[in-house]
Amino acid sequence: MDEALASVTYGVYVVSSIAGSRRNGLIVTTCSQVTSDPPKISITVSKECLTHDMIRSSGRFSVSILKRDTPLSFIGRFGHRSGRDIDKFQDVEYRNGKDGVPIVTENALGYIEAEVDQELDVGSHTILIGRVIDAVRLSDDEPMTYSYYRDVKGGRSPRTAPTYDGWADR
Amino acid sequence: MDEALASVTYGVYVVSSIAGSRRNGLIVTTCSQVTSDPPKISITVSKECLTHDMIRSSGRFSVSILKRDTPLSFIGRFGHRSGRDIDKFQDVEYRNGKDGVPIVTENALGYIEAEVDQELDVGSHTILIGRVIDAVRLSDDEPMTYSYYRDVKGGRSPRTAPTYDGWADR
Repeated sequence: MDEALASVTYGVYVVSSIAGSRRNGLIVTTCSQVTSDPPKISITVSKECLTHDMIRSSGRFSVSILKRDTPLSFIGRFGHRSGRDIDKFQDVEYRNGKDGVPIVTENALGYIEAEVDQELDVGSHTILIGRVIDAVRLSDDEPMTYSYYRDVKGGRSPRTAPTYDGWADR
Repeated sequence: MDEALASVTYGVYVVSSIAGSRRNGLIVTTCSQVTSDPPKISITVSKECLTHDMIRSSGRFSVSILKRDTPLSFIGRFGHRSGRDIDKFQDVEYRNGKDGVPIVTENALGYIEAEVDQELDVGSHTILIGRVIDAVRLSDDEPMTYSYYRDVKGGRSPRTAPTYDGWADR
């Protein structure tokens, strides 16, 4: 079963949000546009993650679309560490969006800023639907795909990923 | 704005369902796993499509993961024609799933069968969440990505796609 599920195609993104003076970001593979008129996107985030609660309380998030050549160490910083332990934005290039939400621009070919419109509790994760308030292309680089991250770069999924298959515990 | 949204990564899938003796399928790019325990997937389908109503009435659907070398004509059959006018399964290889739902196996490297668990109305489209009841890998082929379909094969999105950018009308 896992082999078929693993052939679904995803990109690799940093999703960021803010709560008061605190900012955080995490790696998400599940970002999709869900309507074109008006433009809305969805992301799926683990309830265990700090950013999950920040997005729900601020109602705002950004999605940075990572370049294919993004170093594993950069993904590891956002994907395998907790914002409860470190400030993930320390020494990382970012800008503040129209809505005040931080947007990672380092290793990003573009970004999307969104305001939460709806949410759906699917168990361990929440699907958050955001109205797109800004979307900017920064470069012509190719996006990183999750299969490239996994198969070519040798990257792994943390336990909180929707696609987690137990690999990180082995 | 469209350029940044167009750099989100998707695969290309045939989603099929059944209502009584009638079967239909359509092309979807927005398929994601949303939880791993239990495994659930989401798809986003236009309310205008016949398959949308079939999935909602039967509570069942299948997702066929298309191979990278799938001919444009095959995608056009499922993506740019309506099941109201033709039987899309005529002369196409398929099998019936555990739940009786048709599953396209032609040009598919694998498939996922699901039972609808939840749904979210996001305007022009519905996000359907399905519990995975079966998932089978059929071959080792590479999956088709939406960017490959669009940039290399020259394929287009119909008006009912969440990623529609007006191109089909030009």
